[in-house]
Amino acid sequence: MRLPEFQKILQNKNIDLAIFLKADHDHNHPDILYFSQYPGAGALVIPGKNRPFLAVPKMEQSVAAKSGFKIIVPDERARLLEKIRAELRKQRVPIKRIGLNFSETTLAMKKALQKHLKKARFVDIGKELQELRMLKTPEEIKVIKKGFRIADSILKKAIAGFSAGSSVNSSGFRTEADVKAFLELEASKNGCSLAFPAIVASGKNASEVHHATAATKLTRGFCLIDFGIKYKNYCTDCSRTLFLGTPSKKDIERYSLVLKAQEDAIASIRKGMRCKSIYARAIKSLGKYARYFTHGLGHGVGIKIHELPNLTSQSKERFQNAQVFTVEPGIYFSDFGIRIEDTLLLINDKVEILTKLPKKLVVIRRFKWQ
Amino acid sequence: MRLPEFQKILQNKNIDLAIFLKADHDHNHPDILYFSQYPGAGALVIPGKNRPFLAVPKMEQSVAAKSGFKIIVPDERARLLEKIRAELRKQRVPIKRIGLNFSETTLAMKKALQKHLKKARFVDIGKELQELRMLKTPEEIKVIKKGFRIADSILKKAIAGFSAGSSVNSSGFRTEADVKAFLELEASKNGCSLAFPAIVASGKNASEVHHATAATKLTRGFCLIDFGIKYKNYCTDCSRTLFLGTPSKKDIERYSLVLKAQEDAIASIRKGMRCKSIYARAIKSLGKYARYFTHGLGHGVGIKIHELPNLTSQSKERFQNAQVFTVEPGIYFSDFGIRIEDTLLLINDKVEILTKLPKKLVVIRRFKWQ
Repeated sequence: MRLPEFQKILQNKNIDLAIFLKADHDHNHPDILYFSQYPGAGALVIPGKNRPFLAVPKMEQSVAAKSGFKIIVPDERARLLEKIRAELRKQRVPIKRIGLNFSETTLAMKKALQKHLKKARFVDIGKELQELRMLKTPEEIKVIKKGFRIADSILKKAIAGFSAGSSVNSSGFRTEADVKAFLELEASKNGCSLAFPAIVASGKNASEVHHATAATKLTRGFCLIDFGIKYKNYCTDCSRTLFLGTPSKKDIERYSLVLKAQEDAIASIRKGMRCKSIYARAIKSLGKYARYFTHGLGHGVGIKIHELPNLTSQSKERFQNAQVFTVEPGIYFSDFGIRIEDTLLLINDKVEILTKLPKKLVVIRRFKWQ
Repeated sequence: MRLPEFQKILQNKNIDLAIFLKADHDHNHPDILYFSQYPGAGALVIPGKNRPFLAVPKMEQSVAAKSGFKIIVPDERARLLEKIRAELRKQRVPIKRIGLNFSETTLAMKKALQKHLKKARFVDIGKELQELRMLKTPEEIKVIKKGFRIADSILKKAIAGFSAGSSVNSSGFRTEADVKAFLELEASKNGCSLAFPAIVASGKNASEVHHATAATKLTRGFCLIDFGIKYKNYCTDCSRTLFLGTPSKKDIERYSLVLKAQEDAIASIRKGMRCKSIYARAIKSLGKYARYFTHGLGHGVGIKIHELPNLTSQSKERFQNAQVFTVEPGIYFSDFGIRIEDTLLLINDKVEILTKLPKKLVVIRRFKWQ
């Protein structure tokens, strides 16, 4: 997306070219997706000055062509890296200093690169890439907003589906897996994939922050839902906590405390402020419950579900315009958990909440116990 | 699973310990899953002689405990690697030669390891791990077979759903995405995740081997379905090609050719034979169509969807008992594609087909065109 800026960075650092190699089938390479939107196997090469190109296996040629980039296809015997070297020589690009994203490059890939590009030195440009991807362009923001609209509508439907006799889901949700399946089917119907497997955790399971949702029956009490999709490669992220049955006064107090901590944290965000300062603020808001808050307050969201900025006690970033990030305090006891998570966009010095579902505690009194 | 064997390997190579670090949220670390089944963030440490342990963030403690391994939890300030170093010192494990899977370790991780374990040298044990994971234990085979039974029943249901007025899917499939959503919902209902996003490609789209299924209307002609789930961390993989409408004589001939190439390849597999020899055999069987066969003949399947052995022209492996691998010739034209893929288990010197769906061309004459 911000290719000219990236090439400028390479030039300033005297880097001849950057190579992005996909590790394997499971590896969603964020930089390849960011610059080219190409999802398949192969490599993206961005010289500091010349035109970038994709090197892809023959079978991926037609998919890669959609990127609009120049495509080179290694023939049966010539391996990918040999072909890339030949192409760079043809373009007269020097191959001395090569930029790699060290966070996305395995030791095995580096070994292969060293074998084929013998005189090259490798420079870590991971930080520069993360910082580049952290600030979204207007085109990215348009896509991201559309993704959040879709995700919101799906989560809204799922929440409505909890009430007995709802038209959304007339058979009713019986297990956590039913809710998860509903969310994921709706994502698929909308042509989206998942940013992560949806989490639906009621009762004891909610105390596991990253609970693997299974065919466990939904139980009375808080039910935590964490759901995110990928729309055109960009992730969304939102958590809401419902109550199944009738909450006690203490339940309502605890929910209100988490909600207040979340809203206070959001309200305190200012451009230029250190991100870690709002983590400290959330700890303060949670008071005696702070020891039940066991994860970071939030994280950037983009092509990866966890990007910059970090909203933890260790964070080094400051809030800037065009960042997209979550604010998600939560408390976890042995028999339940409460988390409320919004994703925000900082734009024109103001915070815009991308996850627009209400945060007032949704109480499902008419839950159909099965 | 084969922990004692792995520790023996470490001892033989004079390696003090192996460290497996999860790169990020998206990273399914095959070795951590293999040895501990723990899916969360953190690290697995396996000393050559002492007991292995998991180092995990506080919020993942209860999930990690299910592994039965010793768990250490870094406190707020002490970082993961500091805690690991302290634990190793306590156990009096030397920290001089450390084994890493170079294919799963990023350059950024190695940098962090070097910072915290200053005198350590790092040794690639990726090949040993891949070879270990390649030969399945009886316990793994039991899980794998169960996974394939589930996946088969889902794909069977989906295929039945193509016929107009079928009870499986009374509204009928209109688009590729409808079929994909159906497959993925069924996986979810069965408590399984996906080994990869299901591929449903009809008409022109089928010519893209790794086509990203979208809301494209199903069209007359071949319709390729490639579907795999993860059951208890183990992948399944199966492709079938249907025909929507009435096939011409040429269509039937081409399908029969691919099927014959697939069956011949399977029939020729013998323990001890080089895997690449059956790739050559498939090329021969496809005759004049071989140039439309643009990918490998198959790949090992396990915790990762692509494991050893490789069934390509470059493969170095030989067929051995306890391997699980696919055989999947395919031909791709500009306006359609045919691929037939089974996953096999080589056991007691015989090939057992794990994907039991029939391979006779399924012709959907009563497809409800919408």
